[in-house]
Amino acid sequence: MANRLTLALLQLPVGPEVAENVRRAVDVVRQLKAANPQLELAVLPESFNAPYGQEHFPKFAEPVPDGPTCRALSQLAGELAIYVIGGSIVEREGDKLYNTCTVWAPNGGLVGRHRKIHLFTMDIEPENGGGVQFDEAAVLTPGSEPTVVRIGKQKVGIGICHDKRFEELARIYRNMGCSMLVYPSAFCICQGPMHWELLQRARATDNQVFVVTCSPARNNMSGYVAYGHSMVVNPWAQVQREAGEGCEFIVEEIDFDMVEQVRRQIPIFEQRRTDVYASARSEL
Amino acid sequence: MANRLTLALLQLPVGPEVAENVRRAVDVVRQLKAANPQLELAVLPESFNAPYGQEHFPKFAEPVPDGPTCRALSQLAGELAIYVIGGSIVEREGDKLYNTCTVWAPNGGLVGRHRKIHLFTMDIEPENGGGVQFDEAAVLTPGSEPTVVRIGKQKVGIGICHDKRFEELARIYRNMGCSMLVYPSAFCICQGPMHWELLQRARATDNQVFVVTCSPARNNMSGYVAYGHSMVVNPWAQVQREAGEGCEFIVEEIDFDMVEQVRRQIPIFEQRRTDVYASARSEL
Repeated sequence: MANRLTLALLQLPVGPEVAENVRRAVDVVRQLKAANPQLELAVLPESFNAPYGQEHFPKFAEPVPDGPTCRALSQLAGELAIYVIGGSIVEREGDKLYNTCTVWAPNGGLVGRHRKIHLFTMDIEPENGGGVQFDEAAVLTPGSEPTVVRIGKQKVGIGICHDKRFEELARIYRNMGCSMLVYPSAFCICQGPMHWELLQRARATDNQVFVVTCSPARNNMSGYVAYGHSMVVNPWAQVQREAGEGCEFIVEEIDFDMVEQVRRQIPIFEQRRTDVYASARSEL
Repeated sequence: MANRLTLALLQLPVGPEVAENVRRAVDVVRQLKAANPQLELAVLPESFNAPYGQEHFPKFAEPVPDGPTCRALSQLAGELAIYVIGGSIVEREGDKLYNTCTVWAPNGGLVGRHRKIHLFTMDIEPENGGGVQFDEAAVLTPGSEPTVVRIGKQKVGIGICHDKRFEELARIYRNMGCSMLVYPSAFCICQGPMHWELLQRARATDNQVFVVTCSPARNNMSGYVAYGHSMVVNPWAQVQREAGEGCEFIVEEIDFDMVEQVRRQIPIFEQRRTDVYASARSEL
């Protein structure tokens, strides 16, 4: 039992009012904790407190940790004595804006702040899954540091959505000793069917870790339509649990013994040929 | 048209007689070329000329390129004026054995020799997909060099089976300018359902290249049962073509324009944060 963790993924709808979005998130976490006393970690989606979109970012930006959304998350974590991975919000610091995930400990303290490292800038043409054009980099500043937090006995690496596309970040987290990666995400419905599950399972199998995503619920009337499908993938790269598209709350137990089992049975980290990689890279 | 390539994947059965296995492979390539004059590349499976297994390796080892299997492949490539990626055979050099893929040009010349870098050593327990125990490292010596060959205008990176599990090798090939990776493979039926397609699609999406595998046909009566499912995955990470389990020959056209299209529309190689990765790695 000591190596298990019960977490909740809140695939929440996101409306135009920040206060309302935050209140709903807080209420749902309270209800889930009441119904599941063993709950130790709640995970919220990317941009859970405000609509996602370049035009919205400046309007909804808040300071971290001294803004209203952070205060609500801190209080929630302390009140329920659980960890909260607070999806993401737009953080304002000076004249810069970041896409930022805050992580809160059971005492209400801030234990992690991840600023999205890889900004989402993409121009997929309409014939490929409907296409998508987006340019976070036009408005946001990227973060520059990996973020590892301790949740109970586990080290957990944090990424936000597009960060998931970069194998390097996941490998850094694995090398830092992480057994789980959590990516609050708002993948678009163009990339979703192509790559959402694939990327999550790829990171899981290449690094032999749990990989968790939490998306907003799909709302086809919003300017940016999130894919949904919040997911827990285990270190065998199996989809252990998956939400649908709509508003849905998952409570799932993670068995971290599985991490050691996979690493022992498929010992790829003892088989890596770092000598070969270093030599080949030096010739590039 | 200039950016297209027609290739054949020969998902061949492998019997106990080397001469017979080689003759069958040669005959099938001849037939495929006769029926498909545009054919430019034939790909054979890992261990296509002899049964796969630790106990078999010393018995069936041959010198490269001066053994009977290599001579047959050289002659085949020259006769048909095509490229041949010769799956793999057990190569003997001095007192060492390697799992080696040879690549032959349309003039019959040897243009690539890839010795499997990551030997297949694994001990998956029976409750996980039936389990598998194998230890190539007990008998074989690993290679130490990535292998890139030029096929027409394209650079192609070569790996053998277990090499596919290592994201580092695929990334090196991408950085060396490859647009396609080819992995002759004999994945076991334990790992197959778990990870065969996943690994291939992961390498394709992370590196935005075509990824091609060629497996022996499944033979449930053999000591080591190969998974089958030889596959072409395109740079969008879509399975473009897939064989079943049995003896099957695929002829497929590759459109390399797709490589540039994906790289332009999902520009992850311009978005990589090498500054962040270098800094994080230096602290490990």
